[in-house]
Amino acid sequence: MARGKEATKEVEWRIKVEEDDTLKSKVVGCMWAVTAGLALKLCKFVKKAWELGVNDPRKFIHCLKVGMALSAVSLFYYWKPLYDGVGGNAMWAVMTVVVVFEYTAGATIYKTVNRMCGTSLAGFLGIGVHWVASRAGEQFEPIIVGVSLFLLASAATFSRFIPTIKARFDYGAMIFILTFCLVSISGYRVDELLVMAQYRMFTIIIGSILCIIVSLVIRPIWAGFELFVLVTGNLDKLANSLQCCVAQYFDGSETPDEDSDKQLLGYKCVLSSKATEESMANLARWEPTHGRFNFRHPWRQYVKIGASMRSCASCLDALIGCINSDNKASDEMKKNMRSISLKVGADCASVIREVANTMRKMRKSSKLDIRVTEMNSAAQELRSLLSCYPNLVHNAKRSTQTETAPSDIPLPAKVEISLMQIVQVVTVASLLIEIVARVEGIVEAVEELSDLANFQPEMCVKSKQHSPDSKISPDQQNDEETERTLQMV
Amino acid sequence: MARGKEATKEVEWRIKVEEDDTLKSKVVGCMWAVTAGLALKLCKFVKKAWELGVNDPRKFIHCLKVGMALSAVSLFYYWKPLYDGVGGNAMWAVMTVVVVFEYTAGATIYKTVNRMCGTSLAGFLGIGVHWVASRAGEQFEPIIVGVSLFLLASAATFSRFIPTIKARFDYGAMIFILTFCLVSISGYRVDELLVMAQYRMFTIIIGSILCIIVSLVIRPIWAGFELFVLVTGNLDKLANSLQCCVAQYFDGSETPDEDSDKQLLGYKCVLSSKATEESMANLARWEPTHGRFNFRHPWRQYVKIGASMRSCASCLDALIGCINSDNKASDEMKKNMRSISLKVGADCASVIREVANTMRKMRKSSKLDIRVTEMNSAAQELRSLLSCYPNLVHNAKRSTQTETAPSDIPLPAKVEISLMQIVQVVTVASLLIEIVARVEGIVEAVEELSDLANFQPEMCVKSKQHSPDSKISPDQQNDEETERTLQMV
Repeated sequence: MARGKEATKEVEWRIKVEEDDTLKSKVVGCMWAVTAGLALKLCKFVKKAWELGVNDPRKFIHCLKVGMALSAVSLFYYWKPLYDGVGGNAMWAVMTVVVVFEYTAGATIYKTVNRMCGTSLAGFLGIGVHWVASRAGEQFEPIIVGVSLFLLASAATFSRFIPTIKARFDYGAMIFILTFCLVSISGYRVDELLVMAQYRMFTIIIGSILCIIVSLVIRPIWAGFELFVLVTGNLDKLANSLQCCVAQYFDGSETPDEDSDKQLLGYKCVLSSKATEESMANLARWEPTHGRFNFRHPWRQYVKIGASMRSCASCLDALIGCINSDNKASDEMKKNMRSISLKVGADCASVIREVANTMRKMRKSSKLDIRVTEMNSAAQELRSLLSCYPNLVHNAKRSTQTETAPSDIPLPAKVEISLMQIVQVVTVASLLIEIVARVEGIVEAVEELSDLANFQPEMCVKSKQHSPDSKISPDQQNDEETERTLQMV
Repeated sequence: MARGKEATKEVEWRIKVEEDDTLKSKVVGCMWAVTAGLALKLCKFVKKAWELGVNDPRKFIHCLKVGMALSAVSLFYYWKPLYDGVGGNAMWAVMTVVVVFEYTAGATIYKTVNRMCGTSLAGFLGIGVHWVASRAGEQFEPIIVGVSLFLLASAATFSRFIPTIKARFDYGAMIFILTFCLVSISGYRVDELLVMAQYRMFTIIIGSILCIIVSLVIRPIWAGFELFVLVTGNLDKLANSLQCCVAQYFDGSETPDEDSDKQLLGYKCVLSSKATEESMANLARWEPTHGRFNFRHPWRQYVKIGASMRSCASCLDALIGCINSDNKASDEMKKNMRSISLKVGADCASVIREVANTMRKMRKSSKLDIRVTEMNSAAQELRSLLSCYPNLVHNAKRSTQTETAPSDIPLPAKVEISLMQIVQVVTVASLLIEIVARVEGIVEAVEELSDLANFQPEMCVKSKQHSPDSKISPDQQNDEETERTLQMV
């Protein structure tokens, strides 16, 4: 019996050990799997991040610039004379660099100017309030400071809701609140308020200047130029999409390759770039003259051009939707409309491309008017083709009758076609005509830009083009290089 | 002679005085004009700002909340035990409140969590680097600190470009850089680094908690709820625009009143709200359960619903463009298409409204399927009307012939109509059919939402509706109130 029990125990123990072993191996295996999974995820993440940087190396450069600016400003700590020179307020210089240094030069300048203005305005006001409060006696001091703090902070917070202030001074309003609070209530504790304020202002100015220098001197990234590249690139994408869509419909390749699919969907970028365009335009106005852009370049007009492009792109979106619908058109009608529709599509695309060229060259194009006229006459031709096509639509009965009747208009096709069968082609034609009208909207917006920015007529340039190439400013060359890089991305 | 000279002088003097007088009065007048102009501008600005607040009183409330939070945190300065309790680091509490307090609860929580995580992570790392550096000897200390600063700051800056990190931890990455810099290089100067870090962390936590309490307790503004109101409101606007546009075209009131014009253009809001939707969805995920929304409510799905709405709106935009084009349709054809087109428009609108109701009630609608079926059958009717309308299109010659010919299909109109004249109606019909397809896209997106968020079928609710009204949670009532206010705006 006892032996039997022992044996049972041994077996139990063995089973337990085995269970433990399997449990252990399971746990280890599980942990391995989790670790491997995490590592794999991390690897993928790092790879993605790396690709992000490789696709646009300026991101790497920006990171190095931030590192550089921070290393430079940290000298305030390491170098004793500097540290003592700002009375131990070096922290504010570091903070300024971290907070103010942004990707584009425009954003950096915007934040710098806002920070300096907000700080000085709030500093003066804070010291003033503190002075008044300290005269009012110890009893009233906290009350005066508290009430003014409450009122000014509320007012400044409200000002951030007002669109014009939000676009230009949002950051400044926040810094105003911060500084006013710190100065007015610190005054209650710190005796040498003025000296401290001086030191802080001084360190903030040093930090700001450092940021501006690093941001503007070492491979600057201009918000204005980014906006310019975005808008001109979107124009090209729109032109390609438009031409590609019309060509695919009428030439009907059933197996579109990846490349043409990518081209076809380029207009989606146009539809989704509103927010980027607006923020870029807001930042670009802070930038000084760079490359071919003046300080007062009409950046707002780029937003308008973007809006006209989006209106055109939404029409194109509807067109592509109609093309992809089940309801297929009759081949006859399609064949008859083919050449003129293709011409309208190609003409629209060439007008859009010419507009993009006008913007790139910053010269009033001599060809633009001709292109627009061509586009309009093609649209007119499409319209008149539609109006002289009554015979296409007839049903079986009538078609047997008409065959005996003399007809002075050559009938393109004597097959049975109902209205339903031509709906798609008619819609495509009609949307194409609408797109032509909207392309004219783009042309108008760009012409407005060329007036606002004083583009010269192209003629003057032609004669200049004979001058040696070396006359292209390095900035311009640089711009073109970057643009090429951006377009490859 | 002398007298004559004197007289001349006197006259000159008088002229001079008069000139001076006119100059003076001119300058004074000019200054008055400028002052008055500025005052007028200021008045207008203040009036506009005031209206902004009156239209949405929650903006005023937010400002008062900020004022309150700042007044509360400034107690750290006025109350000696508190001030001494945090070792004079009260500044960090004030700074936290200013920087972290945002309009929506989601944004405040996002910034709070990011600030705390970024600060603590960077604090530990900074102290670690400082510890390693201090062991390495005085010579290597600045080098080790400097290199690690450069590398970590660059890496953290780069991480802000990665979309997933940008959406969730952008602010945290910035705070990480800031804290790491301050801690690692302050360590070089400040002896009691650990104590200082402790105090700072403590004050930041106090400031954060204060912000969260004020933001979440006093009339909180939830990013999620705002997103919900935006999307459902946009659905209604889209439905109204769609119905209004079809009605205006077919019932052709030549003098549209302001009200219907406003309704017609409501869809523009849909087209331009992408950026707002995305930022709201990013912030909403930080919010705890509120009203009828759980912590893990699928906010991303609202962005998808928004995208499907935009696709529908861009088709509507093309439709309105085609309607406004010069090319007018024949009245006959229009009359024949009228009733069915109006039905399609109304059906689409009612499907969209039903979808909005589904979202508002958070219940799977029992009527939605019926409405969708109705809409599809109306679209099918429109299609079949188009296919049995071959006779409408015939030119003068044929129409004289056909009058003698027997016709078994009743001819709706025996007037001269060319294809050109029906292009517009056909396009409108075809775009309506396309819109129907896109409305189905919205329905799909909302159905996905109702699956993700576990909406209950409406049946269950019907029985519950008999319960007394008092069972509606105050939160829900509050929500509905706010929604009504928002819709009035």
